[in-house]
Amino acid sequence: MTADVPDSHPRAASLRTRDRLVEGLENGLTSRTGLIAHGRGEAFDYLLGERTIPSADRAARAAAAHLLAADHPVISVNGNVAALAPERVVDLADATDAAIEVNLFHRSAERIEAIADHLRAHGATDVHGLAGDGRIPGLDHDRGICDADGIERADVVVVPLEDGDRAAALAELGKSEIVIDLNPLSRSAQVADVPIVDNVVRALPTMAAHARELSEAGADLDGVIAEFDADAALADAERTIREGSLAD
Amino acid sequence: MTADVPDSHPRAASLRTRDRLVEGLENGLTSRTGLIAHGRGEAFDYLLGERTIPSADRAARAAAAHLLAADHPVISVNGNVAALAPERVVDLADATDAAIEVNLFHRSAERIEAIADHLRAHGATDVHGLAGDGRIPGLDHDRGICDADGIERADVVVVPLEDGDRAAALAELGKSEIVIDLNPLSRSAQVADVPIVDNVVRALPTMAAHARELSEAGADLDGVIAEFDADAALADAERTIREGSLAD
Repeated sequence: MTADVPDSHPRAASLRTRDRLVEGLENGLTSRTGLIAHGRGEAFDYLLGERTIPSADRAARAAAAHLLAADHPVISVNGNVAALAPERVVDLADATDAAIEVNLFHRSAERIEAIADHLRAHGATDVHGLAGDGRIPGLDHDRGICDADGIERADVVVVPLEDGDRAAALAELGKSEIVIDLNPLSRSAQVADVPIVDNVVRALPTMAAHARELSEAGADLDGVIAEFDADAALADAERTIREGSLAD
Repeated sequence: MTADVPDSHPRAASLRTRDRLVEGLENGLTSRTGLIAHGRGEAFDYLLGERTIPSADRAARAAAAHLLAADHPVISVNGNVAALAPERVVDLADATDAAIEVNLFHRSAERIEAIADHLRAHGATDVHGLAGDGRIPGLDHDRGICDADGIERADVVVVPLEDGDRAAALAELGKSEIVIDLNPLSRSAQVADVPIVDNVVRALPTMAAHARELSEAGADLDGVIAEFDADAALADAERTIREGSLAD
């Protein structure tokens, strides 16, 4: 539809991202309500200036440290994430030795398969989510399904664009939770150990770059984790959004 | 999908509105990018408190006066507006003796027909937009098409949820332009004679109620029009949004 967005267009990146999502609907990856959710994110991203603010970069670094220090790190992927950034999910999993698990708000075996196939086409070798033999307590039946050897046993979970109920239930389980969400006051961001207020398309490669840098430097991961202040990061993001440009 | 949203749900109105739009996609009224645009609007509506703020109510009153004082008022309708509020468009047209014209960002005879049928099913008797024998100068070919006896000859046009280029081109033509847009700093809102920063679902009935009240009272329409201050209304809406709640 807009494959021909010129590079000079002031909102070229945002328009191309949108194209990927619309294509994802055609391919059975994303849902219609997923498109609306993306639009809400776009509004917050405008206000952020469509850039990774310094506090989000610090959050991405802390998130990378959590993943590297984990025994069983898992990246949870829904339809929007798979449509928007499949190669970036795979690259982050590669940089941090994390597993990938498909988890959907409206679970359907057909959509899980389509998303798993899409991730494999972008290099994923091992995609969880189809077994559905694990449970997240505190959620109604369908929403609580996960894989026993994926999210159920994970000690660190990345949940980009996750809904509030699910994020809260995962936090209750005592897992370290990394949330990527453009609204700093969403429940998902509020319950996260590491909230990254950034577009998922930017946050994933930022995390991967930090992970490789921390690994190569043999960094003190516990130190990086300890020095991150989630409340300060959320407050900074909220301030940036409230002062942000509303012009289109 | 969520026909069963309970009244007690804090966001029941917003969720039902969303359902109408998703249904509109199924029925060929709305487009996929229309769903994303709706999501952006939702974010701004959260920040507004999902209510008609007093400055938006004053704008709706001024808009009603413009429509009543016009020789050829026209309400422009796109896919999202038709899906969200067909009966409210028809009621506003009825209250102000305005014509209805279907105008789409991505023009297709099939979608115009589907939208016109949908409006007729909700009581519209005369729907323009299919002739396409008029032109709005300053826009590339498809975007500039309108009806000669509709928007082309109109002196007052209501454009809910209009894109910036089109809104600017209509303003250039010297027509009085009433824009309904949840972002006070969008180009559409900025070029409007009367910007109504409100959800279209609330703004249309508010305008219709004001029109009936002004008519019955035999009000001084020029006075109502003259006392409205667009810049003050936009500044008030922006202030409200910046101070608004971000919690979900």
